[in-house]
Amino acid sequence: MGALDERLDLLYRLGGGAGANRIAGGDAETRACELVSEWLEEAGLEVERDAFGNVVGRLRGSRPELPEVWTGSHLDSVPDGGRYDGALGVVAAIEAVIAVGRAERTLGVVAFRDEERGCNGSLAAVAGGRLPGRFVELHVEQGPVLERLDAPLGVVTSIVGSTRREVVFEGAAGHAGTTPMDARDDALVAAAEYVLRVRAAARAIDGAVATVGRLEVEPGAVNVIPGRVRLTVDARAPDADRLGQLLEALDLGPGIDLAPVELDPTVRAVLREELERLGLPAVELPSGAGHDAGVLAAAGVETGMLFVRSLNGGVSHSPDELTSDEDVALAVDALTGALRRLADS
Amino acid sequence: MGALDERLDLLYRLGGGAGANRIAGGDAETRACELVSEWLEEAGLEVERDAFGNVVGRLRGSRPELPEVWTGSHLDSVPDGGRYDGALGVVAAIEAVIAVGRAERTLGVVAFRDEERGCNGSLAAVAGGRLPGRFVELHVEQGPVLERLDAPLGVVTSIVGSTRREVVFEGAAGHAGTTPMDARDDALVAAAEYVLRVRAAARAIDGAVATVGRLEVEPGAVNVIPGRVRLTVDARAPDADRLGQLLEALDLGPGIDLAPVELDPTVRAVLREELERLGLPAVELPSGAGHDAGVLAAAGVETGMLFVRSLNGGVSHSPDELTSDEDVALAVDALTGALRRLADS
Repeated sequence: MGALDERLDLLYRLGGGAGANRIAGGDAETRACELVSEWLEEAGLEVERDAFGNVVGRLRGSRPELPEVWTGSHLDSVPDGGRYDGALGVVAAIEAVIAVGRAERTLGVVAFRDEERGCNGSLAAVAGGRLPGRFVELHVEQGPVLERLDAPLGVVTSIVGSTRREVVFEGAAGHAGTTPMDARDDALVAAAEYVLRVRAAARAIDGAVATVGRLEVEPGAVNVIPGRVRLTVDARAPDADRLGQLLEALDLGPGIDLAPVELDPTVRAVLREELERLGLPAVELPSGAGHDAGVLAAAGVETGMLFVRSLNGGVSHSPDELTSDEDVALAVDALTGALRRLADS
Repeated sequence: MGALDERLDLLYRLGGGAGANRIAGGDAETRACELVSEWLEEAGLEVERDAFGNVVGRLRGSRPELPEVWTGSHLDSVPDGGRYDGALGVVAAIEAVIAVGRAERTLGVVAFRDEERGCNGSLAAVAGGRLPGRFVELHVEQGPVLERLDAPLGVVTSIVGSTRREVVFEGAAGHAGTTPMDARDDALVAAAEYVLRVRAAARAIDGAVATVGRLEVEPGAVNVIPGRVRLTVDARAPDADRLGQLLEALDLGPGIDLAPVELDPTVRAVLREELERLGLPAVELPSGAGHDAGVLAAAGVETGMLFVRSLNGGVSHSPDELTSDEDVALAVDALTGALRRLADS
């Protein structure tokens, strides 16, 4: 654990501040890419940067004509982000590829840039066209599911689809003292009913979530009945059917912003078998957040994703984000085993 | 109606803008007081200004040693306010006192300043100590009750008591995608339930109203579960018992900011009889808004209040505020009759 932990610390401290501060496009993200390039070269990998700045280090296989097998994650962070988000997937990838050593297929460690603002690094890589045949991303869960199941690791089944909408409620502003209750058309009362409906609708659909994250009241004065409320709904579900049901229940119309992506059944099976080999429960779960893995999967790469348990209730995008050393060690072990099999078949 | 209507127009246009703009402390309010002073002098009344700038015009009675009888209202307005709010009670008072003529008691027309920000003019007059024995304020209802009852005029029973509080809901901010519905502690869901509870509690108490006028969500991002919500509750009821019940139902504790004030039974009876004399339904209703009449009543003045029907659903504090010429004429008639009786007894 020494080297990996030290590297996580180095990356965590690069941008200063209260947490990880490797904001996409900033100096700390650039220095993180340089640092990772050095570690890859020290490990004997051939390092390449694409036009967007994504870093790929390759360990040439005995049959380099076969499609490559990559692992990795992203190096940027949100402001004051967590220690493990993205960074863990990169430093663990280096350990795992070194542990596998020379295989039939060429192994690659990839460090994507600019994931947090919408997977721009992996989208650029897909647009550039130089892609592996298989990809495994190791990432912290950023949620409480594995912690609640007492499971160190989980295999991701799909990256959820999502839709974001603004909904406006029009009522009639009025005097809070002189308008009787039965003469009111209070936009906030209508909005409150909708907030509860959003929760009920998501609860009724397995694996779905929906959130009203913003809500603004007009005119917003203590003694004026609200005349208008604008709120946002963020609706997500593991597949298009369920997302469609959720949107219908919320009167949001049929448009899906980001389509759900199923991950590759073969890679998933390999990951599950690795968890079983380690004596761990082979938990499968969808990812509620977007990931570079989803971009590669949508581009036709046979993709799998391994989640590591987040502690502290799954808190993420915060310095409170925490994953134990023991779970990290298990994750590196499982990733190594999976890569070995994926690179030799 | 000619003179009264012309005077309302003059006052309405004083401050320019889209509605009444006689903001307390501003030039237009000062000019309104000067204009009213001129009208009072033209009518032969003795005009006096107190230290705060409130105007009183007196028509000396045959028994000036008796406590005086005043009528009037306020001359300031909210920004872009209505044509009738306050101003009607002043210009109608001039008409009514002229119509009564010399009576036993000295009659006074009062024009208070600075009512909209919290009855500061009448509070200053009460502090100054020069008060009448009886007071009748004519004012537009600023609500829909009389319009819904098809009644031109109404007698006010009480000025409601009110309490304003901020309520904070603490939850746990979290990722809108990775936190399952049953692992959430969403502050906005709790706040939405409270908004509906506020409505239900007020509906269950006759004459009570309660309003959540402001609501702010933190952090307020489309993809983050709300971690904290701050909202305001404005709760009002016609008497202390009912306001206490309302506060208890809303877990707001026992504190009352503004105590409810009962208006004088004798003055109310006189006003009711005037409505009957005019063949009108003798509707009685509480006032949900604060008024100078409430300040004088709380100071021990025998106070009554006559509401004139607001059209357009009772809209107020807006250029859309409307009261018909016919209703204004009935109000002046009722006020004249009431003053005559109150000044001769």
